[in-house]
Amino acid sequence: MTLTSPTIQEQGKAASTAARRLAATSTEVKNAALIGIAESIEANRKSILRANEQDLETAKRYGLDFHMMDRMTLNNARVKDMADAARNIAALEDPIGETLEKRDLPNGLNLEQVRVPLGVIGVIYESRPNVTIDIATLCLKSGNGVVLRGGKECILTNTVLAGIVKNAIEEVGIPRGAVQFVESTDRALVKEMLEMDDSIDLMIPRGSAELVKFVGQNAKMPAITGGVGVCHTYIDADANLDSALKIVVNAKAKRPTVCNALDTILVHQGVAREFLPSLAFEFGLHDIELRVDGRAMSIMGAVVDGAKVSSAQSDDFGTEFLALIASVKIVDSMEEAMEHIAEFGSKHSEAIISENTEAIEQFLNEVDSGAVFANTSTYFNDGAQFGLGAEVAISTNKLHARGPMGLKEITTYKWKVRGQGQVR
Amino acid sequence: MTLTSPTIQEQGKAASTAARRLAATSTEVKNAALIGIAESIEANRKSILRANEQDLETAKRYGLDFHMMDRMTLNNARVKDMADAARNIAALEDPIGETLEKRDLPNGLNLEQVRVPLGVIGVIYESRPNVTIDIATLCLKSGNGVVLRGGKECILTNTVLAGIVKNAIEEVGIPRGAVQFVESTDRALVKEMLEMDDSIDLMIPRGSAELVKFVGQNAKMPAITGGVGVCHTYIDADANLDSALKIVVNAKAKRPTVCNALDTILVHQGVAREFLPSLAFEFGLHDIELRVDGRAMSIMGAVVDGAKVSSAQSDDFGTEFLALIASVKIVDSMEEAMEHIAEFGSKHSEAIISENTEAIEQFLNEVDSGAVFANTSTYFNDGAQFGLGAEVAISTNKLHARGPMGLKEITTYKWKVRGQGQVR
Repeated sequence: MTLTSPTIQEQGKAASTAARRLAATSTEVKNAALIGIAESIEANRKSILRANEQDLETAKRYGLDFHMMDRMTLNNARVKDMADAARNIAALEDPIGETLEKRDLPNGLNLEQVRVPLGVIGVIYESRPNVTIDIATLCLKSGNGVVLRGGKECILTNTVLAGIVKNAIEEVGIPRGAVQFVESTDRALVKEMLEMDDSIDLMIPRGSAELVKFVGQNAKMPAITGGVGVCHTYIDADANLDSALKIVVNAKAKRPTVCNALDTILVHQGVAREFLPSLAFEFGLHDIELRVDGRAMSIMGAVVDGAKVSSAQSDDFGTEFLALIASVKIVDSMEEAMEHIAEFGSKHSEAIISENTEAIEQFLNEVDSGAVFANTSTYFNDGAQFGLGAEVAISTNKLHARGPMGLKEITTYKWKVRGQGQVR
Repeated sequence: MTLTSPTIQEQGKAASTAARRLAATSTEVKNAALIGIAESIEANRKSILRANEQDLETAKRYGLDFHMMDRMTLNNARVKDMADAARNIAALEDPIGETLEKRDLPNGLNLEQVRVPLGVIGVIYESRPNVTIDIATLCLKSGNGVVLRGGKECILTNTVLAGIVKNAIEEVGIPRGAVQFVESTDRALVKEMLEMDDSIDLMIPRGSAELVKFVGQNAKMPAITGGVGVCHTYIDADANLDSALKIVVNAKAKRPTVCNALDTILVHQGVAREFLPSLAFEFGLHDIELRVDGRAMSIMGAVVDGAKVSSAQSDDFGTEFLALIASVKIVDSMEEAMEHIAEFGSKHSEAIISENTEAIEQFLNEVDSGAVFANTSTYFNDGAQFGLGAEVAISTNKLHARGPMGLKEITTYKWKVRGQGQVR
């Protein structure tokens, strides 16, 4: 018997229909599905790893770079992490059904604002196969259907993982259709998916900056176009400079390829002479390249020893480096630092290092970013670190959700109005 | 001396800069500005009315229709209403600065999620001059800058009103620039405004369905594209039919030109024979045209007396009539009614009339609209009726805000993270 694969449009419709039933599914049933997914991942460890090995062999033949290969590789520990992630999501509070507001109007109408799922979430992602489990389980817990479109390089691994999820939800009575996995790797399908605003309520791109940009520009439905972080740390005149040094090293060096990594250090002129030489030394130890403005150069040029310091070009400000590179600028005041951030930042993550409470509060109040930090590292801008339990994306949108997006951030609400024949 | 008018892009930038100061303005100062606006509207009643008369004369020359003329006309009572609207907004709670969440993380970081303004709101509106005051005062209270672009037909009235607002805010120390009024009526500016995503955070169109559609398709920034309501009322097998009749008459006839007016009545077959003849009679009294499906026609065709009943064409379902017209369809079950709503509705306002609590709860849970009603009229879907105090728009978007949008719905949040040198 030959089965024709459904079109991606049919998959969208099927997710939409199934999502209506999923929306009315109890927390207990959803959690049972999540535990089922975790157990099935562990029980099927060998076939997951086998599929992953095949994907890796193909990738090798196509000459994928080491970084990409590393991201897509699974092993026993990473498989266990996926199972644990599903269990963690089972342990989180169910956001659905929460009453956000309730009031009785003078005319006797009873008004209730209730949290409900968005409907269907579309996800386009690359390389890392754990995204299949992460996103599918977050959508499941939040009562949303999902259409998953993973990268070609992990197609076999993702197919096995999606099958595990579909079987586990069916096992507890949730329609299989709530989780749709696009098996074709035809690139044209991405464009088609972005036009399915009749069935997909929110699109989440997970991958390169180009992918995020493409989705943002082409999606007919709302899309989370976060992920690009041009992150600043301002070293105030009243900063504890030892602490400042430790923090900027952490924010830059710990994981330079993520969106919350530091890009630009703004240094108050009052502490520049003391701070910049030790910055050059310390960054030199961590092999971090510094691109500095003229005033900073006049201080750092003389003291460079093993440090990679060069003059900043204009595009070194406002750039997300995603590498062991940072730019440095001396400012005359906190106001100048805040102006610079307003002009060059991406409203993602910004920090102030200061012992002056008044300056801290002004900075936290006036800098318009999704997350603003005092005396700590922008690298903390992360759903798990914030205790949201899990993270779909970090949004730099201002509407709907800002910063790390967890379960609540992929829901909406509706008003229920109960009357006894009232008219207006 | 000749002053060159600023370009609309310059106005956007100016609003953006001023909005940063407005965001940090206290509730007391914002309320003082609102009271100042109310008093100044009353003090300047005569010049407002004079400008309005001039606008009306021009409109007459251009042959504007009666409906449009009525909407743009001010009189003593309407001027007083505008002043009262500003006072009402002063009396509402300030949404800004509210702590939405707060937690201390195990590593000692203190996390706070705080409500903040969106930034700058752009509004493109037509005819009714009170929108100038409504929107400017809502933006002011919520700490948002605003760029106002009213219709050509009310340019003189709107200019006077915008001047009153700008003077009143300057009086209390808020920068004039926070409220920008576009004085040129060049239509090309609308398109330009929709491209200013670097300075405008949210675009709100207030006017015809075409305007809303144009903004939705052309705005580079997020836009509230609500306002189109294809609203259903389902008459259940267990409905109180007297109450049902009163409610559908209200939902259709009270104000047929608004988005929350009834468009389609779905009648359970078990009560169709009893309900439809009285519906035809009652709607006939209110001069409402009925377009009914085949099954309904077989019942209603025989009893028509003074009623305007005709056979529904396929596009009579899924249409927002905005007129004294309603379509009728008989359904075999509530499930069929909900399927019809899912297929033809615009997720705006839907109602069930029933005495069966179980049916009511299922309908309220499963119908995916911004507001769902039991035993009352969809005409209640309104910010003021819901007690939100005021309304910017009714959103049919699912993301960010759904249903009536008041003050809270034009805000966002940020995370403040306070540390003592923590690194990750």
